Amino acid sequence: MLRETCGQLGRLRPPPGWLECSRPPPLKEVKDARKRKTGVATPVFRASTTAPVNIAVIKYWGKRDATLNLPTNSSLSVTLSQRSLRTLTTASCSAAYPAVDELTLNGNPQDIQSSKRTLACLANLRALRQEIEKADSSLPKLSALPLRIVSENNFPTAAGLASSAAGFAALVRAVADLYQLPQSPTDLSRIARQGSGSACRSLMGGYVAWRAGELADGSDSLAEEVAPQSHWPEMRALILVVSAEKKDVPSTTGMQTTVATSELFSTRANAIVPARMTAIETAIQNRDFPTFAEITMRDSNGFHATCLDSWPPIFYMNDVSRAAVRLVHDINNLAGRTVCAYTFDAGPNAVIYYLEKDSSLVAGTFKAILGTALEGWSGPFYEPVKNITDSGVPLDQVDSRAVDVLKSGLSRVILTAVGEGPVSVQSHLVGEKGEILSSS
Amino acid sequence: MLRETCGQLGRLRPPPGWLECSRPPPLKEVKDARKRKTGVATPVFRASTTAPVNIAVIKYWGKRDATLNLPTNSSLSVTLSQRSLRTLTTASCSAAYPAVDELTLNGNPQDIQSSKRTLACLANLRALRQEIEKADSSLPKLSALPLRIVSENNFPTAAGLASSAAGFAALVRAVADLYQLPQSPTDLSRIARQGSGSACRSLMGGYVAWRAGELADGSDSLAEEVAPQSHWPEMRALILVVSAEKKDVPSTTGMQTTVATSELFSTRANAIVPARMTAIETAIQNRDFPTFAEITMRDSNGFHATCLDSWPPIFYMNDVSRAAVRLVHDINNLAGRTVCAYTFDAGPNAVIYYLEKDSSLVAGTFKAILGTALEGWSGPFYEPVKNITDSGVPLDQVDSRAVDVLKSGLSRVILTAVGEGPVSVQSHLVGEKGEILSSS
Repeated sequence: MLRETCGQLGRLRPPPGWLECSRPPPLKEVKDARKRKTGVATPVFRASTTAPVNIAVIKYWGKRDATLNLPTNSSLSVTLSQRSLRTLTTASCSAAYPAVDELTLNGNPQDIQSSKRTLACLANLRALRQEIEKADSSLPKLSALPLRIVSENNFPTAAGLASSAAGFAALVRAVADLYQLPQSPTDLSRIARQGSGSACRSLMGGYVAWRAGELADGSDSLAEEVAPQSHWPEMRALILVVSAEKKDVPSTTGMQTTVATSELFSTRANAIVPARMTAIETAIQNRDFPTFAEITMRDSNGFHATCLDSWPPIFYMNDVSRAAVRLVHDINNLAGRTVCAYTFDAGPNAVIYYLEKDSSLVAGTFKAILGTALEGWSGPFYEPVKNITDSGVPLDQVDSRAVDVLKSGLSRVILTAVGEGPVSVQSHLVGEKGEILSSS
Repeated sequence: MLRETCGQLGRLRPPPGWLECSRPPPLKEVKDARKRKTGVATPVFRASTTAPVNIAVIKYWGKRDATLNLPTNSSLSVTLSQRSLRTLTTASCSAAYPAVDELTLNGNPQDIQSSKRTLACLANLRALRQEIEKADSSLPKLSALPLRIVSENNFPTAAGLASSAAGFAALVRAVADLYQLPQSPTDLSRIARQGSGSACRSLMGGYVAWRAGELADGSDSLAEEVAPQSHWPEMRALILVVSAEKKDVPSTTGMQTTVATSELFSTRANAIVPARMTAIETAIQNRDFPTFAEITMRDSNGFHATCLDSWPPIFYMNDVSRAAVRLVHDINNLAGRTVCAYTFDAGPNAVIYYLEKDSSLVAGTFKAILGTALEGWSGPFYEPVKNITDSGVPLDQVDSRAVDVLKSGLSRVILTAVGEGPVSVQSHLVGEKGEILSSS
């Protein structure tokens, strides 16, 4: 089953019901088989979860506290379906493990001790476990045991998709499940935030706001579900993966540069984003796609404007990104209404949101432009696009130069949709004896 | 002589003293030869001038009054040498001409009546002539005669250099000379501004500020020489002309879109630019290149940031522009001090300012990267660059991708420098009988 659920991008076919199990199962204690032979069984405790990628429509850019990952402004994202993209993480602990916590990502052992962020997350989770162990002495003292955490993404890092959000959300969710913590996803979001800011938004499904908060200790800087996936399940996302290019500065460095140097930034953080947050939440409540779309596009542009206004300037969008922008505007103009919206994170990839009912106009047009020889026209959300053969808008009326640039500048597409939050699963990456397994 | 002075870009070789004649010569009245035979001579009055291109270091972007071309913020530019780039314009008037004013640009008759801007300039100049005719009845009534204006640029419009600034400055200067108006260049700048905003800055040499002004009638929105060319004559400009690409929206439309839609724009216009104006004027007075350079680059980035923040977004810079930005930062970093500065107008071309003493570091590096097979490594400012064979900075330490993008993305360079304001010349584009001549 593991192989089946962790296959190639877009070919995930989980068995029915598999993804619906979103509550942690009873904690599983496994006797170490080797030790059992000698009569001294050392249990291995395990819990596994998947966690989703999220793509912001109001961007997080700028920290007011770099250690606690407190943002200068609130942000809002759409959680993407784990049927397409997800991180699978198993958290385990055992007295049989070496004394120091271990973390393996995509098969590579990580140096946890050099990652203050990971250490902060684990320390917070252990403290919460200690609280419940103190309150109920019958509980096993898991907080005292070394951890072994194993995590795998089902998407190539080369896709340029920020994996840290899904990664830290899965890590926090898996350890919280291992420790059987009573905290809500919003409570846990405070912890995940310290791993990677946007990770706090991957602890929930649907439409998720990260409230910037005002307190110095960050206790009011947390994620909230604005609307569940079921409120507006028709939202689709077409990701245009731009051919590998050396990235500009990493986002952590980049956002600090922007805060420190852009003279336009404070206007964005203090005045523009708060108004947009209110407006886009209303648009989501009303399932008002045109308003949602315009705010999404304007916020992406405004975010990249403050990057360009930084010193030295930061460029994440390139000519391929610009071509995608132009085509989205052309499609909306030709459709006579707003049927799609672009957004760009700290990289050149475009994420294009649209509603399933407009698949022909949006996905159909991009499919006609890009051709099905390009990788990624497949997967669980391909069905309504599969039989579309014609462009949704007249191709002779869209910017032909943008078409050329886009055709030659993409390495693949990913067709996905709004999705649920983390899901507890029985597919473990740590075996019953504590050995590291692989999903591939 | 005309052919000699109006040759190809970068090969201008004016005779000694030709450009130094900056005061209008006595008005020339020519008897129409044909009419003379019949004894009824109809005079043709002529005056000719050249006018320079200017490249802003604090950008003009946004009008508070679109009819009067009143800007939302002050701006500042460097006037470029007419030994490289210039418009030559002859203004003439004669009772022998058809009743309606005529304008010929680069050999093409223009429809003056459909150009409110040209009409506004001519009406203002005529009114000033009428004033002096009223005060001195001995003066010929030139204001009553139809105008024939002929103008030619010595640079291809394909170079993507804004020709309207030099064009309207030359038109206003030539007609003012024809009318022998006593007004100063600053007075005339109010008129040129109505033709094309940035034209007001081309009426003076050296370093020129355009004060935004506050009055509704625009009478305080005028250009002033901050420092003459002679104050800081070492300033050089290397223009990287990006291979022809369809331009995004024209600047007039673009700036109106930005003012109307960018939520970041008012911060730029009201807070950021005023502070930069003060700082860069001080830098110019102190001949402080590093400060001048940083403000120039930041203002260019900030201007393009507000374009990107517009709705729909406006992109003028492309991947080639970005490569130029990166190389300038690399050169400054490798030089250990700020030796060059980029700026971008409403298009992808880079203008790179540097001081002549740093020719090796800046022009030398670009020459080594681009190779001398590229057009434009020539002209009156090539001398100090001619014998440089090595890159000024180690080429293996600059961004190799930026080098590749730049090498394949330019159509030519133009090597020029800070220069003087308009110059009155005796090379007329209208013959003694009123016939249109060509400089080529």
